[in-house]
Amino acid sequence: MPEIAVVAPSRTQNTLLAVLDDARVASRTLATATTDLKNRALAAIADAVEANAGRIIPANDLDLANGRENGLSDGLQDRLRLDQTRLTALADAVRQIAALADPVGENVRGQSLPNGLKLSEVRVPFGVVGVIYEARPNVTIDIAALALKSGNAVVLRGGSAAQNTNRVLVELIQESLARVGLPGESVQTIDEFGRDGAHQLMQARGYVDVLIPRGSAELISTVVAESTVPVIETGAGVVHVFLDESANPQWAVDIVANAKLQRPSVCNALETLLVHEAAAERLLPSVLGELRSSGVTIHGDERTRALFPDAVPATEEDWSTEYMSLDLSVRVVSGLDEALEHIRTYSTGHTESIVTNDLANTERFLAEVDSAVVMVNASTRFTDGGEFGFGAEVGISTQKLHARGPMGLSELTSTKWIVRGAGQVRG
Amino acid sequence: MPEIAVVAPSRTQNTLLAVLDDARVASRTLATATTDLKNRALAAIADAVEANAGRIIPANDLDLANGRENGLSDGLQDRLRLDQTRLTALADAVRQIAALADPVGENVRGQSLPNGLKLSEVRVPFGVVGVIYEARPNVTIDIAALALKSGNAVVLRGGSAAQNTNRVLVELIQESLARVGLPGESVQTIDEFGRDGAHQLMQARGYVDVLIPRGSAELISTVVAESTVPVIETGAGVVHVFLDESANPQWAVDIVANAKLQRPSVCNALETLLVHEAAAERLLPSVLGELRSSGVTIHGDERTRALFPDAVPATEEDWSTEYMSLDLSVRVVSGLDEALEHIRTYSTGHTESIVTNDLANTERFLAEVDSAVVMVNASTRFTDGGEFGFGAEVGISTQKLHARGPMGLSELTSTKWIVRGAGQVRG
Repeated sequence: MPEIAVVAPSRTQNTLLAVLDDARVASRTLATATTDLKNRALAAIADAVEANAGRIIPANDLDLANGRENGLSDGLQDRLRLDQTRLTALADAVRQIAALADPVGENVRGQSLPNGLKLSEVRVPFGVVGVIYEARPNVTIDIAALALKSGNAVVLRGGSAAQNTNRVLVELIQESLARVGLPGESVQTIDEFGRDGAHQLMQARGYVDVLIPRGSAELISTVVAESTVPVIETGAGVVHVFLDESANPQWAVDIVANAKLQRPSVCNALETLLVHEAAAERLLPSVLGELRSSGVTIHGDERTRALFPDAVPATEEDWSTEYMSLDLSVRVVSGLDEALEHIRTYSTGHTESIVTNDLANTERFLAEVDSAVVMVNASTRFTDGGEFGFGAEVGISTQKLHARGPMGLSELTSTKWIVRGAGQVRG
Repeated sequence: MPEIAVVAPSRTQNTLLAVLDDARVASRTLATATTDLKNRALAAIADAVEANAGRIIPANDLDLANGRENGLSDGLQDRLRLDQTRLTALADAVRQIAALADPVGENVRGQSLPNGLKLSEVRVPFGVVGVIYEARPNVTIDIAALALKSGNAVVLRGGSAAQNTNRVLVELIQESLARVGLPGESVQTIDEFGRDGAHQLMQARGYVDVLIPRGSAELISTVVAESTVPVIETGAGVVHVFLDESANPQWAVDIVANAKLQRPSVCNALETLLVHEAAAERLLPSVLGELRSSGVTIHGDERTRALFPDAVPATEEDWSTEYMSLDLSVRVVSGLDEALEHIRTYSTGHTESIVTNDLANTERFLAEVDSAVVMVNASTRFTDGGEFGFGAEVGISTQKLHARGPMGLSELTSTKWIVRGAGQVRG
């Protein structure tokens, strides 16, 4: 990779650059490791996670005790907590990743040139993947498994609140790797380097091929702003559904209810409902009635509140808020153009869906909405690596570079061009 | 796209954000423009460039006069200079881009899900592409044509030494766009905002979808370091050829001569020759004889200088230098492993080639060399968008994210997922 801003590798252990250098060396073994060997490593990791509650849970209890002392919220404590059930679920997830197809070596495209040169572009691992995330120990296992399956070494910087748990999990992973003959440095944590370690990781261009932040919008924007290493960004979802004049009333009810209620806390859940003014009176009573009976708070514009006087007045802030809760913004629009304008102004480019029976409006919506996933007559909850058939999901990219939408194993790879000749030179 | 670090659009012209906002509006028209319309715009631009030497050359003379006053080197003055011959060549390049296939709308992959949802991933333009480059007016036309063909609006920040030339060229482009009914704001220059403009462009995340630096390693590393907008990096080439023990002697002579001599000043030209110790005496006399008779200065290690006493001693710096001149570093290695280690240490990941008849060594070289393009028995000069059949070339990516190797029009696109349903909800 480019030597720009790359410091000469140091071999003295206990510096972060040395950790990254060890990851680079390990990545060479992983890059050429067979699928069978990588799958054996994943099986060993799954077994170790399941069998070592006795080592994991005491460390997790320590983190939880520290968390309580430091006033960690109940929600965050719950995300931090591991028990035997959760460990078994984690192990099963790793086994599912082992069952997925190996993206490495896939022939993406190729041709023979008139001069006889044979070109092929093949998938290769990135090399060293850095991940910065929060106090969720499941991400440690999850990401390590995804990185290994795609032939990458990974350097993990988890939330300090999970430091003891993560140390034990990484020890177990490294023991499992050693058991099958892969380098333990394939998976390393840099939690011991603290805040400075995270900053060094973001600046380690040439050592780290790609950096993936997983967590809050604040974490992601910090990494985007500070990193000189290329970043794959997983963004927030201010997700819209537009009910067009010709919307099938049952589809409108089913899709809005599913998009808002099935799992309100995730990024593909509905946050803003737009309704064609000519359909508002026909559709809103049944659509919003269903939601309110499920405890959803409606934040409505004036015309919505004319139909639902008890709706909370929607503020400018509501239109750009990812509630991740039982709240929904509702706006009556004059038609498709105003719906598209609203989406352009407030969408985060994650997922938008139109419910309609009008072909022209369908094609305009699909063409003009600039989001990772654009749907017609379907629930936004389908924007998901599992639903798309990718198996495990790295995250959902709302940026346009390298990956857009649900990211599977192949989004953790790059490509390289192989050129086979017989003495050809350029004329 | 993510709202992170995005300021609300200002409509007051004469601020840079307003320029970017106009580019965003124009990009919506371009995104849905037909291939025919985009090609008509390119034809109009080609004609305008060819027909308006009377407007272009006086502005170019002014830039050249300023350049001489400011001590611009002869080489840079030559890159800055435009004459009728060069204008015709530029126009022809634009016509060639018009003749290329339109990447927009290409169906990348897709499937029908068991529940009847129809998924397809289709190519879409990035939206707004920013380009920061040096005083080479040809890049202005080149990049504008590539961006338009791929449906992108483009914001150009050229070298201040070419400011007058670029202003006229962008005027001609905007007039041509207006002539076919496309928005003039599709192609804009921000030269008038000076250094601060370049910095604002790098920070305009949410306004600019991707930033492409074109020019010196210094320029590229500055953009990489300062930009919060995703960057596609085109890197330098410290390019290696390894002559294995079994190398065909004629292929060795032909490939090394072509790679070093055909165009020494470009990034795919050979910079370091590695030779198997068992083949050095057999191959080097003819290989280096040919080069020296063409005026190449050999920078050799000790063992090379044992065979060529008049070679300049190679320093540590030579191994990591992209000469772009009639200089060549030569090192005798103990075999494939030492060659791979040398390449790992000094390569910029652009292009490496092995000359061999050994199958096992071929496969190891292709698998273990971590470069954008890895070759066997071919000249490194083939790493080129034109040679690969991409037509026009945006540049050659030496990074691993989004694009690796020669970048054509499709590397100026992103994708989005289209989901067509009939009321499906997630279970």
